[in-house]
Amino acid sequence: MLAVVFQVRGLDTRQPALHVLLWQRALAPERGRWSLPGGRLGDDEDLISSVRRQLAEKVDLRELAHLEQLAVFSDPSRVPGTRTIASTFLGLVPSPATPALPADTRWHPVSALPEMAFDHGPMVQHAHARLAAKLSYTNIGFALSPKEFALSTLRDIYGAALGYQVDATNLQRVLERRQVISRTGTTARSGKSGGRPPALFRFAESRYRVTDEFAALRPPG
Amino acid sequence: MLAVVFQVRGLDTRQPALHVLLWQRALAPERGRWSLPGGRLGDDEDLISSVRRQLAEKVDLRELAHLEQLAVFSDPSRVPGTRTIASTFLGLVPSPATPALPADTRWHPVSALPEMAFDHGPMVQHAHARLAAKLSYTNIGFALSPKEFALSTLRDIYGAALGYQVDATNLQRVLERRQVISRTGTTARSGKSGGRPPALFRFAESRYRVTDEFAALRPPG
Repeated sequence: MLAVVFQVRGLDTRQPALHVLLWQRALAPERGRWSLPGGRLGDDEDLISSVRRQLAEKVDLRELAHLEQLAVFSDPSRVPGTRTIASTFLGLVPSPATPALPADTRWHPVSALPEMAFDHGPMVQHAHARLAAKLSYTNIGFALSPKEFALSTLRDIYGAALGYQVDATNLQRVLERRQVISRTGTTARSGKSGGRPPALFRFAESRYRVTDEFAALRPPG
Repeated sequence: MLAVVFQVRGLDTRQPALHVLLWQRALAPERGRWSLPGGRLGDDEDLISSVRRQLAEKVDLRELAHLEQLAVFSDPSRVPGTRTIASTFLGLVPSPATPALPADTRWHPVSALPEMAFDHGPMVQHAHARLAAKLSYTNIGFALSPKEFALSTLRDIYGAALGYQVDATNLQRVLERRQVISRTGTTARSGKSGGRPPALFRFAESRYRVTDEFAALRPPG
């Protein structure tokens, strides 16, 4: 198993960006290149238990708000030596958590990946595409966001995760209509630029669900 | 690999229903129970080539309009004997194709599965849930439908695949607005009940895509 763990970092700067958790290989093969966290499946565990166990060695698992299976990478020549099939997972860490990391492990911007080991680069791209698609038809944004947030923060999170700017007003309109987010009734302590304190919002649920079951296809009752 | 291959059957009857392709085990273990088609990964093939190869032994592959990876089933005790991990796939056959089947193989209604081998029953349920979700935010209906169809036929296909009735007018409104289907400009030769010949429609694309990238999240340009 290999896990692609994303977090939006730099929300307090001008350039918030989606980052991925990687560790640097100290030994051959591919020494010095960067790898996704993961490892071999144990005899008495299933995939999800295994990936949770292995991630716990890298990051504090309380910080992981979402974990799901992605594609299996099975090209016979994907790694040298004994054939190895990699089952990949998508993990999401909300902002602004700052889990402690071991010395060989670091967050890297998805838009500027370092030299990657094996097929781990395409795995990150695949996971990023899946995340971007899911932002449009599910409530998965909850797993990247603080418990309560100003709309400008949510816009920055969606923009960073998608890789292009989104409009805060449109985002609010769509997410409120789908009852994905709602107002908390309170405001932040002060506006970014010293203006009126912005209203705070939260996600209605912190469990993953598809939010676009459009009327015609909704089950009866 | 194991493949969950679905087709809507019985469109010419009053009870069209989603069916799944199963074969009956002639030998132990689980003799007499019904299995999903599939088999072991060869040393020199990847998963998708392998599942295509193995399905080709059961059905005519020209009939398969969609094939995608689903979940990996990895419970250590899912089958007796040597540990086996199963990577599952969703395959869709359009109506009204009637691929030739070997003697041990048959279509079964998903709502009334026979006694299933191992964990193949839950695999069918998982694939069905995935198909139902995807009908609401993608154009995946193309892979279950004829090239051209009356709306009443499409309603029957969606209803059978979802497991509950849908309204033809709502379905048309949503799918036309999203440019998933469009009119061919022609009509069927005659109405079902001898009435006015119904307008024919077709899917705009016969390649899978997410159709609900709502405006706020669409990439620029």
